[in-house]
Amino acid sequence: MKNFEFKNPTKILFGKGQIENIKNEIPNDAKVLMLYGGGSIKKNGIYEQVSTALSNHEVVEFGGIPANPEYSVLMEALKVIKEQKTTFMLAVGGGSVIDGTKFLSSAALYDGKEPWDILSKNIPTLKGMPFGTVLTLPATGSEMNSGAVITRADTKEKLAMGGAGLFPVFSVLDPEVIQSIPHRQLVNGITDAFTHVLEQYLTYPAGAKLQDRISESILQTLIEVAPKVLEDPTDYSAASNFMWSCTMALNGLIQKGVPTDWAVHAMGHELTALFGIDHARTLAVIAPSHYEYNFETKKEKLAQYAERVWNITEGSTESKAKAAIKRTEAFFNEMGIATKLSQYTNDYEGTAEEISKRFKARGWEGLGEHQNLKPEDAEQIVKMAY
Amino acid sequence: MKNFEFKNPTKILFGKGQIENIKNEIPNDAKVLMLYGGGSIKKNGIYEQVSTALSNHEVVEFGGIPANPEYSVLMEALKVIKEQKTTFMLAVGGGSVIDGTKFLSSAALYDGKEPWDILSKNIPTLKGMPFGTVLTLPATGSEMNSGAVITRADTKEKLAMGGAGLFPVFSVLDPEVIQSIPHRQLVNGITDAFTHVLEQYLTYPAGAKLQDRISESILQTLIEVAPKVLEDPTDYSAASNFMWSCTMALNGLIQKGVPTDWAVHAMGHELTALFGIDHARTLAVIAPSHYEYNFETKKEKLAQYAERVWNITEGSTESKAKAAIKRTEAFFNEMGIATKLSQYTNDYEGTAEEISKRFKARGWEGLGEHQNLKPEDAEQIVKMAY
Repeated sequence: MKNFEFKNPTKILFGKGQIENIKNEIPNDAKVLMLYGGGSIKKNGIYEQVSTALSNHEVVEFGGIPANPEYSVLMEALKVIKEQKTTFMLAVGGGSVIDGTKFLSSAALYDGKEPWDILSKNIPTLKGMPFGTVLTLPATGSEMNSGAVITRADTKEKLAMGGAGLFPVFSVLDPEVIQSIPHRQLVNGITDAFTHVLEQYLTYPAGAKLQDRISESILQTLIEVAPKVLEDPTDYSAASNFMWSCTMALNGLIQKGVPTDWAVHAMGHELTALFGIDHARTLAVIAPSHYEYNFETKKEKLAQYAERVWNITEGSTESKAKAAIKRTEAFFNEMGIATKLSQYTNDYEGTAEEISKRFKARGWEGLGEHQNLKPEDAEQIVKMAY
Repeated sequence: MKNFEFKNPTKILFGKGQIENIKNEIPNDAKVLMLYGGGSIKKNGIYEQVSTALSNHEVVEFGGIPANPEYSVLMEALKVIKEQKTTFMLAVGGGSVIDGTKFLSSAALYDGKEPWDILSKNIPTLKGMPFGTVLTLPATGSEMNSGAVITRADTKEKLAMGGAGLFPVFSVLDPEVIQSIPHRQLVNGITDAFTHVLEQYLTYPAGAKLQDRISESILQTLIEVAPKVLEDPTDYSAASNFMWSCTMALNGLIQKGVPTDWAVHAMGHELTALFGIDHARTLAVIAPSHYEYNFETKKEKLAQYAERVWNITEGSTESKAKAAIKRTEAFFNEMGIATKLSQYTNDYEGTAEEISKRFKARGWEGLGEHQNLKPEDAEQIVKMAY
């Protein structure tokens, strides 16, 4: 096991009816900026629940944060924060609204000229404006971690930021929100959380037995509840296990003491930037090719994954590992997720080269758990995913 | 899944060489009270490592905190805190030293006359004097939770306390400390952590699939590493998995959203109070009888435990459940832990009635996950454990 530091101070309020308790988690004298996305919360009753809970607080609203939270929109929200002198933020939404709120948390206290520098110059946020979240779409884990990904349309960039100052003060996880989530988003959420675990688990073996088993626990739970959630989103038991699994998949716990990969995300982000493909679907496109391309360094863990998660117990390490890759791709396919780039766009020729070029231009030294994958390797992997 | 709240702000510094980093976690201007037990840290090099790390801090020492931390000794330490005006505490030890430090954290800021009231009147500690820990004995989980158990010799009491203010600010978990722990204490630590998980897992089924699997992960890891740790405590890989499993067994995570039992602990505490039997060993004595006595309400989870943890897959729910109880007892026995009270004392006659009498005298209404076990039930369970 590798040495590690772990601290996660976010308070989780889990279960039905928890939204009303946010009034106790936000200081009475706070001026609250409530942030949300396209307005679905006004149709499913969440907006009303939040408004009722905050009826004794001073609240300013900012709606319209898009999927892949867009820098120019967030800069409008930043103006509101400065003009209205808000002191606390409440993100009501999925990963995009929460990530956007994290950017604002950082930018509100940033004393440089250009807030984009927080992303482009990789400046860690040690202190941000405090914020809570009401999660409406389980997927990204952003509700219990300190990272965010922000998109900038005019430069076609999608960059990450983070820091110990960006943990939500609290997050409400009410599984009843799942009832009103469109099928496509549920499939995306399951795929996103599943791939988050794979990025922290399918590496080289590091002797972290407990972390391995907890990762496998999340994967097994997602596999078990996925069909139930998709068939009947009102199944509270399935919804609650799905929701908690998504949070646990990326709250820092399973990445401690182990190597992590994240190359699938790095390549996937480019596919979203280039073609606007849903984030989760880009991961499902890249993952199988990535594991095949890096088979030699990953085969032991792939075989362990085959045995413990998919119950593939016959054959050699290699054959179990290969079967696990195929089974993973089938799992995505069974949920209706296409796993080849050509199924999303006819315009895929040259994508691999373009991504390789972008990686080179950013001067990235290496991807993957050994940080030895070069832009040329990414080019091969993306080609395999055509 | 039941509704829950979860927040655990303790920062973990895990791995070899982490002790030196405590200097960065304690404010430079803090006046530190360093607390420890019987002095084993002066033989195994930990005292020296801590002293070196704190060479630029002002440090006062208080040694001699006994196993089952004793109120009168802690009141001496409280005097030192008041006289020396210390502002931060560092517990260097196992669960007893850490629990004692938690009492002091609370008592130092308590404005009542009699600090014992914190325990006897069950006053939650919302704010305590800040403290960190350097864990020298994995077992109790106290290094990452907000609870403590304090003993008072003159009244023969052993009471619990807790509150959100009692999480350590940081805890150092360096698996190299395991090299110098006596075999008996290692066996106790494995048994204690294992039983902590059972108390939160072997209840009635509550549909918390992920929590179940994480509990099983900890049990499986402990079973896998126990023989290695006991055979060779210098095996760093085994030691690190053992240490992290003990912490994860009682840091709040696996008890969220599920019913918990803790009746084994309630009865076990009395055996320690009456006969001075090691805490962990009392749990191994009570647990098998407790699960047999409450077989009907626990058999589904016992069968799941049989299948997933012990790979007992043949037979009916009942037969798997019965086999799981036997296998658990055998696991304790294989480590050299006796699981019958008569193996610890010849003077066991009347113990069951005495424990029942004590429970009645305290006016306890009910034990177990249904809170419906009466003193008479405890009497039967303890008798089965003779």
